[in-house]
Amino acid sequence: MAGGVGSRFWPMSRQAHPKQFLDILGTGKSFIRQTYERFAEFIPDSNFLVVTNANYKTEVLRQIPELDIDQVLCEPLGRNTAPCIAYAAYRLLAQDPEATMIVTPSDHYTSNQEVFKSVILNAADFADNNRALVTIGIRPNRPATGYGYIQVADTPVQNGVNKVKTFTEKPTLEVARAFLDSGDFFWNSGIFIWSVKTIIDAFEKWLPEIDSLFKSIADDYGKPSEREAIAKIYPECRNISIDYGIMEKTPDAYVICSDFGWSDIGTWESLYQNSRLTFDQNVANENTFAYNTTGTIIKVPSDKLVVVEGLKDYIVVESDNVLLICRRENEQNIKQFVEDVKLKKGNKFI
Amino acid sequence: MAGGVGSRFWPMSRQAHPKQFLDILGTGKSFIRQTYERFAEFIPDSNFLVVTNANYKTEVLRQIPELDIDQVLCEPLGRNTAPCIAYAAYRLLAQDPEATMIVTPSDHYTSNQEVFKSVILNAADFADNNRALVTIGIRPNRPATGYGYIQVADTPVQNGVNKVKTFTEKPTLEVARAFLDSGDFFWNSGIFIWSVKTIIDAFEKWLPEIDSLFKSIADDYGKPSEREAIAKIYPECRNISIDYGIMEKTPDAYVICSDFGWSDIGTWESLYQNSRLTFDQNVANENTFAYNTTGTIIKVPSDKLVVVEGLKDYIVVESDNVLLICRRENEQNIKQFVEDVKLKKGNKFI
Repeated sequence: MAGGVGSRFWPMSRQAHPKQFLDILGTGKSFIRQTYERFAEFIPDSNFLVVTNANYKTEVLRQIPELDIDQVLCEPLGRNTAPCIAYAAYRLLAQDPEATMIVTPSDHYTSNQEVFKSVILNAADFADNNRALVTIGIRPNRPATGYGYIQVADTPVQNGVNKVKTFTEKPTLEVARAFLDSGDFFWNSGIFIWSVKTIIDAFEKWLPEIDSLFKSIADDYGKPSEREAIAKIYPECRNISIDYGIMEKTPDAYVICSDFGWSDIGTWESLYQNSRLTFDQNVANENTFAYNTTGTIIKVPSDKLVVVEGLKDYIVVESDNVLLICRRENEQNIKQFVEDVKLKKGNKFI
Repeated sequence: MAGGVGSRFWPMSRQAHPKQFLDILGTGKSFIRQTYERFAEFIPDSNFLVVTNANYKTEVLRQIPELDIDQVLCEPLGRNTAPCIAYAAYRLLAQDPEATMIVTPSDHYTSNQEVFKSVILNAADFADNNRALVTIGIRPNRPATGYGYIQVADTPVQNGVNKVKTFTEKPTLEVARAFLDSGDFFWNSGIFIWSVKTIIDAFEKWLPEIDSLFKSIADDYGKPSEREAIAKIYPECRNISIDYGIMEKTPDAYVICSDFGWSDIGTWESLYQNSRLTFDQNVANENTFAYNTTGTIIKVPSDKLVVVEGLKDYIVVESDNVLLICRRENEQNIKQFVEDVKLKKGNKFI
């Protein structure tokens, strides 16, 4: 899933160049490229599908040249994760009705590839042999309020797989602390594993309107007419997430809980937490000269020199035609800044 | 005089593009262009001479297309103001031995053109009719420690002209306060007015080595051989200022004291003091969105958008390949930052 348009990492992320295509962590690889490589270790190139906005098709193929053009499914507009997943599921059904499907965001970070691989393969094996909608839960290490939580049922079904008891959206800090203490709440990673049959059954049952729309163009998948057919039905789909539309309702939800150093890097704060820090606790590259500066994230193009003096706990980002300087504790205001800029200056800087 | 290479406004000023060529105040005109226009109101174009580094010749002519190429005198290297003035004086002597000469820095600011013009014309008139080295003193309005001071003799010689009693280089704050209170100390504007004859007599008397060098190529001024002749003698000149070399020694120093809203804009602080401030007391253009930000100078290319949050009394400058963020109270450290950058990165950012 690579269709997102977020403003959270503005001005690094832009409408024309959202987070999944960026190397915000400075690893040398964008999130989508890292995501591809994470799976390519054990999944053949021909088995990938990328669902993205039509505007990003070229960028996807530029960043993952291993893919054929028809492996990039284009949404004419964003409708949240349920239609995105339905599209991929129906395309897969046309290609291989016995397929097992792994759904993943393309803008997350993981650090432990060995654990990641074994968890995914375990989930795929379980989904292959059971009527199961499996999600991956991440053992929390702090009372994060920005994530969804999954409560697991007490007794494991088998080999690390549990039934899901409840899903909870972003909790308050107090609730998050209680979740952390209880030990049976896990972060919802947004990674799902299921057989094509099981997810399509679930669409039929829980999101029948979306299901009918995608069924109505069954003859078009994988053919030249697919693009036009999708363009016709997509705007009619409800804007709804797979969590809200199916996972929170189905009795077939399972979770495998693990810890492979996951983060959605959804905030500058999580970027800070997941970055290698300098001696002065800054995030900065070798072109940065920092004086009396601590706890500060400095992200500028690699050919730019930065001299900072006297900053404590700031975000400094320059990207293309925009410079942003903001206190780390106030990053939640950036969304509003972007709105203000849009209102006064139009889309030029968005 | 347009040969200076300063690092004080780094990164706006660079070795390749020093302060005199910049529009640091955001007026739409560079300092050198403003300086030209200030005098062009009462001096014909053909009477200007610009002394600058050979590397800046093209830029001078680009910014003052009213000048002919042979009105730009090129120094092969910088040797402070005394050789610069000697060069112009000897060139003038060859062209018009009866000339009156006005010497001015090209990177200062004045706000009151009427007063300026009348002071200069008064000085020129006095210098025309007397053996006088006239300098312009500025009535101080604060105990500035960054300027040289001129103490005037008690009795005016005539019409606003006084004898100079002493010159004092940058004083301590305590001394500057005493100067301000006493009422007979004025800032040294670096503007001089004298007849060509008088200044050449002064060079003969007080800087005879420099004088001999420029006399030795008397046949070359205004001819194609001038460039080569200057290239030969210039490196042999002492590096010395006109103040130290002549003005502080001569008994013929006079001063006209006035107040035409002068500043050398030698520091970010003086830029701040001489800029139009926003409602929040910032220096910022209409492409700046400032939140909880006061007392901050924001200077970036005009096509750049800036969003700042939570800055108080900072300098934020972006220019070409460099971003500088520094507390206003620590601007004196910028010189050191530039040294550090030079040491680690070479001249690429200098």
